[in-house]
Amino acid sequence: MSRHEGTAPLLANEDPRDSFDEEERALLLKEENKQIRRERRRMVLCLGLAIILTSSAVAFTFFFAKKSLGRSRNVIMMVSDGFGPASQTYGRSFSQFVGNKAMDDLTALDKILVGSSRTRSSNSLVTDSAAGATAFACALKTYNGAIGDNLIPVSLGNTGLIIFFPSTRVLTNARKSYAVVDPNGTPCGTILEAAKNLGMLTGLVVTSRVTDATPASFSAHVASRAMESEIAEQQIGFYTLGRQIDLLLGGGSCFFLPNTTGGCRNDDRDLIKESKEKGWETVMMNRDDLEQNKDENNALVLPALGLFSSTDLSFEIDRNHTQQPSLLEMTETALASLESSAKTNQGFFLMIEGSRIDLGGHYNDPVAHVHEILMYHATVKAVQKFVSKHPNTLLISTSDHETGGFTLGVQNDPNTYPDYLWRPEVIAKAKASTEALTWKLVQFLSEDHSNKQQRAFVKSEILKNGLGITDAEEEEIAFLADSERLSPEILRFLGHAISKRANLGWTTMGHTGIDVNLYAQGDSDAVASLRGNRENTDIGRTMRDYLSVDLDYITRLLNKYVDPTFSVLN
Amino acid sequence: MSRHEGTAPLLANEDPRDSFDEEERALLLKEENKQIRRERRRMVLCLGLAIILTSSAVAFTFFFAKKSLGRSRNVIMMVSDGFGPASQTYGRSFSQFVGNKAMDDLTALDKILVGSSRTRSSNSLVTDSAAGATAFACALKTYNGAIGDNLIPVSLGNTGLIIFFPSTRVLTNARKSYAVVDPNGTPCGTILEAAKNLGMLTGLVVTSRVTDATPASFSAHVASRAMESEIAEQQIGFYTLGRQIDLLLGGGSCFFLPNTTGGCRNDDRDLIKESKEKGWETVMMNRDDLEQNKDENNALVLPALGLFSSTDLSFEIDRNHTQQPSLLEMTETALASLESSAKTNQGFFLMIEGSRIDLGGHYNDPVAHVHEILMYHATVKAVQKFVSKHPNTLLISTSDHETGGFTLGVQNDPNTYPDYLWRPEVIAKAKASTEALTWKLVQFLSEDHSNKQQRAFVKSEILKNGLGITDAEEEEIAFLADSERLSPEILRFLGHAISKRANLGWTTMGHTGIDVNLYAQGDSDAVASLRGNRENTDIGRTMRDYLSVDLDYITRLLNKYVDPTFSVLN
Repeated sequence: MSRHEGTAPLLANEDPRDSFDEEERALLLKEENKQIRRERRRMVLCLGLAIILTSSAVAFTFFFAKKSLGRSRNVIMMVSDGFGPASQTYGRSFSQFVGNKAMDDLTALDKILVGSSRTRSSNSLVTDSAAGATAFACALKTYNGAIGDNLIPVSLGNTGLIIFFPSTRVLTNARKSYAVVDPNGTPCGTILEAAKNLGMLTGLVVTSRVTDATPASFSAHVASRAMESEIAEQQIGFYTLGRQIDLLLGGGSCFFLPNTTGGCRNDDRDLIKESKEKGWETVMMNRDDLEQNKDENNALVLPALGLFSSTDLSFEIDRNHTQQPSLLEMTETALASLESSAKTNQGFFLMIEGSRIDLGGHYNDPVAHVHEILMYHATVKAVQKFVSKHPNTLLISTSDHETGGFTLGVQNDPNTYPDYLWRPEVIAKAKASTEALTWKLVQFLSEDHSNKQQRAFVKSEILKNGLGITDAEEEEIAFLADSERLSPEILRFLGHAISKRANLGWTTMGHTGIDVNLYAQGDSDAVASLRGNRENTDIGRTMRDYLSVDLDYITRLLNKYVDPTFSVLN
Repeated sequence: MSRHEGTAPLLANEDPRDSFDEEERALLLKEENKQIRRERRRMVLCLGLAIILTSSAVAFTFFFAKKSLGRSRNVIMMVSDGFGPASQTYGRSFSQFVGNKAMDDLTALDKILVGSSRTRSSNSLVTDSAAGATAFACALKTYNGAIGDNLIPVSLGNTGLIIFFPSTRVLTNARKSYAVVDPNGTPCGTILEAAKNLGMLTGLVVTSRVTDATPASFSAHVASRAMESEIAEQQIGFYTLGRQIDLLLGGGSCFFLPNTTGGCRNDDRDLIKESKEKGWETVMMNRDDLEQNKDENNALVLPALGLFSSTDLSFEIDRNHTQQPSLLEMTETALASLESSAKTNQGFFLMIEGSRIDLGGHYNDPVAHVHEILMYHATVKAVQKFVSKHPNTLLISTSDHETGGFTLGVQNDPNTYPDYLWRPEVIAKAKASTEALTWKLVQFLSEDHSNKQQRAFVKSEILKNGLGITDAEEEEIAFLADSERLSPEILRFLGHAISKRANLGWTTMGHTGIDVNLYAQGDSDAVASLRGNRENTDIGRTMRDYLSVDLDYITRLLNKYVDPTFSVLN
């Protein structure tokens, strides 16, 4: 518009073209057209820019939505502790027998078998608990402790009495650690912490003490498995990262209470009381508490802490239903609570452990073992129902290792060729775990009874009413009625007495190194990535990738602000 | 053309139109056009019909091509007899140790794991050999015999000497039968017979006697496993269906030769001689024969019979390489021969068995067991190479059952907590099977030696040079040097002596009931149909469906012309 330069400013509402001659008018029109075209170009440019910006915004949103998809995804990791392939065949076959089902009737697990997991730690084919659980929690192989595994005292039923697992070894150093990557105790970020860091809800549901191996490996960083008091502190929020768990259900109140009030803590802290101060909305100490705290949708207000026994929960076969909830009941409550509390697009990570399947193996007790397995199967079924209704959920079920060297076939007499069968009816007749019966017998033998009375008690209360054994041999009764026997001897004897009658075999009271079954359901890509024969760390990696979480970031976070526990002990 | 009716016949070459007036001409033209149109219609009709017929022919051809696709398909069924999940972990771990490989190095099998197989027979969770093999061969569940399994005498190495497996039971009736569907002995058509009926080539390659359980269940119908002479007759063609096998490689010439010439037959028939008369083109009795009969492509002229030992072939660790071929060598020869002999679109069914993996389990001998496994792995690798080059091939590998209750972990002292490790170096040091060492010791003890000499022999020749044991305890040496010992006692003692040092456990010298691993490679639909936890009969069904063969037809054929064996014995 250089042509207008120097002219007087045009009056408002005056068409400048009125005073122009034709040539000027034509020029002006041409100029005007140019301007219109220029403006059109500008409009097109703007529109283009707008389109580009909108597209970018959409792409940006999509990109971040994809990156943060983890928030709308759920992972349910189920751990059948100490559960080898033979235990699955055993559970299925027993279930068919007691349920009078067809021989090709399948369990909930059978329908989602995808392969097997190699359980070895970085320095042994036979893993210990710490290395086994760390592979899932941190997706990293770590070392077995330099010493043999040492089972800590476990309660006998819900009696408060403690039985010591037979071992000549004592835990003397700090190398049996959880969620650490090397023997020096460098802590590693866990999938639970990473999920929490992403704003997800988190939960742990177990039948052991919540401070035991598997739950501890997801939620605490300590240098020794014996440090259960410290694990309890970290679990309610006293550590670098603060409270990471929204739902914690299981046994083990002992390590939350001082020994002056019946707990196991050497300090005078009452973590139950502190947990309330620390913001835990729901705190439950028995099944009544659980029932009373559930709303009409079966949900608890989170964060929720439930410790339903002093130490481990009872074996399912011994469980006092008025005192303790089952694994199935805790799981259904957990799923309802997480679903109810989750904000839009939040998602959750939940670890559920059939913890005491393992103890049935350690004790070589096929009765306790199979009832833990049946309850685990029922729990899997409930979780599968949830998964089928929530397609953004990945369910993985596997074991950290096999326990017991359990098999479905035994040669009781080396000079007689073994029969090709097993006898489920023997197991079906038993009414108690060998753990509960051992306690019962030890109690009776400690009282003032004649040998005749002791023998009668063994024959009637322990063998007949307890294990359903009516063909006890004289030497079996004599062995058990000997009041000098130690509880570990009785425990082992009872396990083998019923196993041999059922034609079941065990090679050890410890772990073995065989591959365990791997089960998965949900997202087809994630499930496909688990098919075949996998390293146990692949399971941690699959969860990490499915949730798009950064475990390394958590590891850096943990090691930047190292917990005092580490600096003191390493 | 009614208009021409009554007119005189037209002369040849005379255009009738020339004599017609215009009207007639017009009418004629119209008529001609009508005729042309009619002919066109006829042409279109013919063309249409041709198209329909051609399409039908194509569809017909396609339909029949689809129905007879089996003829261009190959099935390779590999059976790792008595090989449970623990044996696979064991084989992998040992292979990593001796090969100095990474801890996540996989075997050929690991790469094609698709799930597991339930091995139970129709009346017991723990199957016997007959029921286990019949599930594969006939795709049908059958009963265990009413009596316990009774192992027949097996040779000690390649010495011709026989050792009896410990058993108090004697095979007294005819209920241990192969390829039969019920205890009455009704024969069932096998996948091998059905494949042959479709015009395919068939082969059996084993390391046991070819007349033993697994090969017999595919190729013979007898009422008792002890009827190996009759099995041999049927295998070379003396039965209802005539010769069904094109390639038969393994051990067991004993049942093909009369006992007057060193064989095991009670009649005077020489089936080796008869097989030549019966049309078997290639007959081989040792490895030299095998080498000499192979052409430049490693192929034999079919039908080919190779019996490389009097009874079972030796354990791989004891094998005399100049006398007997390995499973790998026999398999490579079989694949080359079948490929070379197959006519266009013919296809083949080949069963390959690592037969003596099972015997390692029965003897509780971890040394023999693992070397059989390594050879099986190598054979799988060779077959996988063939499958990858021949996409119309389905490979399935599985086991009929587990043997031994084998586990990777043992508690040798009930009062000491077991170590979480196993010791591959113990197994790597051993140089012979316990079977071969038992024979060696029994031989020495039967000679005239002082007790001091016997003890020295045990310590040096058996334990140190044989099993690599240099820390033998006094009582171990004394036990073995006792010349009164029976060979089964020695066999068991040696197996346990090395197992406990390697930290390996066994619960039985018989079978167990646990699920076994299932492996598959090839056609994706067939492989998908095997994923997860399957019944052993599903394996037979998958082969049947993949080849589109009719097993029922063969069953009807067999039962219409029942073999005299059945009418005599049942």
